[in-house]
Amino acid sequence: MNKSLIKNSLLEDIKISTIFSGIKKTKGNEEDLLLIELEKNSSIAGVFTQSLTSSASVNQCKQNIKASKEPTARAILVNSGNANAFTGKLGEQTVLKISKYLSTKLNCNINQIYTASTGVIGEQLEAETIIKSINMMSPFNIPDWERAATAIKTTDTFTKVSRRICKIDNAEIEIVGIAKGSGMIAPNMSTMLGFIFTNANLSSQILQKLILSSNEQSFNSITVDSDTSTSDTVLLVSTKKAKHKPINQYTDPRLSEFKTNLTSLMLELAKLIVQDGEGASKFITIKVTGATSKKSAKIIAFSIANSPLVKTAIAGEDANWGRIIMAIGKSGQRAERDKIRIYIGNELVTKNGMVYENYSETRATEHLKKTNIFLGIDVGVGKSNATVYTCDLTHKYIEINADYRS
Amino acid sequence: MNKSLIKNSLLEDIKISTIFSGIKKTKGNEEDLLLIELEKNSSIAGVFTQSLTSSASVNQCKQNIKASKEPTARAILVNSGNANAFTGKLGEQTVLKISKYLSTKLNCNINQIYTASTGVIGEQLEAETIIKSINMMSPFNIPDWERAATAIKTTDTFTKVSRRICKIDNAEIEIVGIAKGSGMIAPNMSTMLGFIFTNANLSSQILQKLILSSNEQSFNSITVDSDTSTSDTVLLVSTKKAKHKPINQYTDPRLSEFKTNLTSLMLELAKLIVQDGEGASKFITIKVTGATSKKSAKIIAFSIANSPLVKTAIAGEDANWGRIIMAIGKSGQRAERDKIRIYIGNELVTKNGMVYENYSETRATEHLKKTNIFLGIDVGVGKSNATVYTCDLTHKYIEINADYRS
Repeated sequence: MNKSLIKNSLLEDIKISTIFSGIKKTKGNEEDLLLIELEKNSSIAGVFTQSLTSSASVNQCKQNIKASKEPTARAILVNSGNANAFTGKLGEQTVLKISKYLSTKLNCNINQIYTASTGVIGEQLEAETIIKSINMMSPFNIPDWERAATAIKTTDTFTKVSRRICKIDNAEIEIVGIAKGSGMIAPNMSTMLGFIFTNANLSSQILQKLILSSNEQSFNSITVDSDTSTSDTVLLVSTKKAKHKPINQYTDPRLSEFKTNLTSLMLELAKLIVQDGEGASKFITIKVTGATSKKSAKIIAFSIANSPLVKTAIAGEDANWGRIIMAIGKSGQRAERDKIRIYIGNELVTKNGMVYENYSETRATEHLKKTNIFLGIDVGVGKSNATVYTCDLTHKYIEINADYRS
Repeated sequence: MNKSLIKNSLLEDIKISTIFSGIKKTKGNEEDLLLIELEKNSSIAGVFTQSLTSSASVNQCKQNIKASKEPTARAILVNSGNANAFTGKLGEQTVLKISKYLSTKLNCNINQIYTASTGVIGEQLEAETIIKSINMMSPFNIPDWERAATAIKTTDTFTKVSRRICKIDNAEIEIVGIAKGSGMIAPNMSTMLGFIFTNANLSSQILQKLILSSNEQSFNSITVDSDTSTSDTVLLVSTKKAKHKPINQYTDPRLSEFKTNLTSLMLELAKLIVQDGEGASKFITIKVTGATSKKSAKIIAFSIANSPLVKTAIAGEDANWGRIIMAIGKSGQRAERDKIRIYIGNELVTKNGMVYENYSETRATEHLKKTNIFLGIDVGVGKSNATVYTCDLTHKYIEINADYRS
């Protein structure tokens, strides 16, 4: 997409402000605080980290969404530089203090305030610093998504924004999303965040079903280093300004174009996170077919995607397919040895439980020299598929993560 | 232990031979084939990889042990350099051909022949090469365990032998074990193997219970890189020559000294494998206490031990305990945030859901500069413990595994 400011947006009633608050300790006073103000009626849905040590902000967002059948949002506040995770009761009070302040300022219920924090774990976040900064913030004339996405970056090396235009009935619908994340997580400074906005007139209940489904095929289909953050958050917000007839069912066929576009936008953001994977030199697509169920296909695909031996082999451009066999084997999922087919790019590697007679390691290696790697695996026991995305494991990953904080 | 030849062994009736067969393609014609011949009455038990793509040899050993209530063994044949894994029906025929040959030569049932192969995956192992080499082998005068352990090495940088002397009643009992493995697995050339021998007069059924229990606390409590081999095998063999009264029950208290010694021997071998972990610069002990069950404690411990972010932090001597919190959180096991206590060495890091007031990062970092690292984690919800062992994740691991085969 065009990285410049989006004009003529259908989401102009969303107010965006960013500021440098000083929470993120980097050279050059980079902006580290984002405030998104929403009009009264905005619907909201969210998906969150499965971690049992989830952060205070994640717990608050979850509560807000659970608090009513049709939750609404008035503000989303995101800071980078400090995750406010594992900060005990004090950390919870900080979230409460900030949310209270914002709800008074915006004259709304505290349940309508959503916060997200990423950065260092275990250090207290100062509510006063945030509140002081909020007071100095003023919204841009039109939503600057690029700048919003920049303010939430931590170890990210580039800004992640995606946009789609589609239709519901004859109404024009815009979807804009911003994201951050570079290690699937590096709890120090990373974590995955995504915030998606649309003008489609959809209830929070329908948004929740939409985000669950699209998330499964996008953010839940990527891995950088198999580690899970305490703060992962994806929110989907609607201004409800589009003038189409009401949609009361998630299954309404009038939603299908929107669904496709939402999934494609979320997948684009998810892939950008993998591309920005710590130390990544290659983007890897792993498609598993012939599994007994979608879940099984995904477990096998992730077993391959998370294997350090597979990831280092690809970093070394080594067509070491034995490691893929190993990763299938350790997944614990059904697969039939003599029916397993492995493809590196278009090159068929195995057939009848052994190496394929026409397999050319030269051709496979040729494919591995590219930046975009495709691994296809048919496990030969069923009809279900899954695709996951990951990156290779390089010296640079070790550098970033062994030497990061000190 | 003394690395030299063991004299006055109680296991002198075990015949060991080694030879260079040429299967392992290394400079210097290192020995790569080990044959252990056992007397007729020898009992045997085994534990094997959980991988669903296990090798032909593993499948054969499993079948042998299942074939009767009281399986016996006449020979164990181990080659390094070729794993004979993912070699299809041809690979199975190779195992059959070699076993048939050996059983004819030793005048025994084919069920009494056990084989193990490690090395490159997906290349056919030539039965003829093995058979020709067997014909040229002749046993040492007394068992040379050191040389036996050397012949089964692949990427191992040192030979792994362990020995214990204990008693059952007044009879002197010897236990000797050899092992190989350096990546928990690198399917190319690694895999974990262990072969343990004793003169204790124990049935195969009792041996099986012994090996299961000791394995859980030793080989099943280590990880180098979370990857599981297609060929992992541990066998426990008894010559039954010791002159103690029969032991008919696994629970017989006269076995307790033997149990302790067997577990300690297997744990020593397992720790040697971790110490030899690919690229390892530090040995890490992770003890989880206060969990709801032993299983839960072990899952949490492995979640920490397998986290690339924890492993790289330790490689970088960085007291980045937030990554330990993350790993506890992603394990999916019960833990109570406000009761979690993390120790780095003796240094208490967290209390009441946040960093402990007297925590000194300087002292924690001091501990991380050592070669032997201890991480203690109490999750505050129960009374069960588990300890696992691992190593750090270094640049050298990437070097070895990205550049290995090519």
